[in-house]
Amino acid sequence: MSEFDFKQVIVVRSDLGMSKGKTAIQVAHAATLSSEKARKHRRSWWGRWIREGQCKIAVKVDGFEDIKRLSREAEQMGLPWVLVEDRGLTEIPPGTTTCLGIGPAPRELADKITGDLPLL
Amino acid sequence: MSEFDFKQVIVVRSDLGMSKGKTAIQVAHAATLSSEKARKHRRSWWGRWIREGQCKIAVKVDGFEDIKRLSREAEQMGLPWVLVEDRGLTEIPPGTTTCLGIGPAPRELADKITGDLPLL
Repeated sequence: MSEFDFKQVIVVRSDLGMSKGKTAIQVAHAATLSSEKARKHRRSWWGRWIREGQCKIAVKVDGFEDIKRLSREAEQMGLPWVLVEDRGLTEIPPGTTTCLGIGPAPRELADKITGDLPLL
Repeated sequence: MSEFDFKQVIVVRSDLGMSKGKTAIQVAHAATLSSEKARKHRRSWWGRWIREGQCKIAVKVDGFEDIKRLSREAEQMGLPWVLVEDRGLTEIPPGTTTCLGIGPAPRELADKITGDLPLL
């Protein structure tokens, strides 16, 4: 993916056993929310990411602790991030954190904290 | 889902046999692109949808013809919509249309053309 200088990474909890449809919607929530955050607070990253074609990658972790740790690391690095909590209308209990959106952000910064995670 | 007056519907092609991760990213592309379109051209719908919590639904069809027909119907009804074409770096040939994003739009309008489709 070296053609992209900016990327958005969505980190999904694989331990919740979410279906394909449920997973897709949670990832979409993370993508839209984190991109809104970047549009407001990291405007130039957001603009360049849009022009590059909005590279998005979905990776997985196996529990909430990893999500929490990665969100702290994103915060410390000044990257836009969001946690997605599910309303719990289907499949899982209300208020469950399902995924973490990071970026759009410079690829090398995003890779520093998520580059070793397996693809979803 | 009667608590929501606005919704976004992502229509996914189930005939491509995409993995969970691939599907999630295609749905996320549709969600961010269609929401950007609404932000620019249907600002009040977009704002109300954001405030309601961004209701998103993923449904499926089994081929490109259905996607094409639904996009024409969305256009005729004045709803924001986008087609997502995959770059084809993984799993499927470049340029394949993977899904259609519709809205955010008033629920009853979105339901008129997508209300009968099965959930992804």
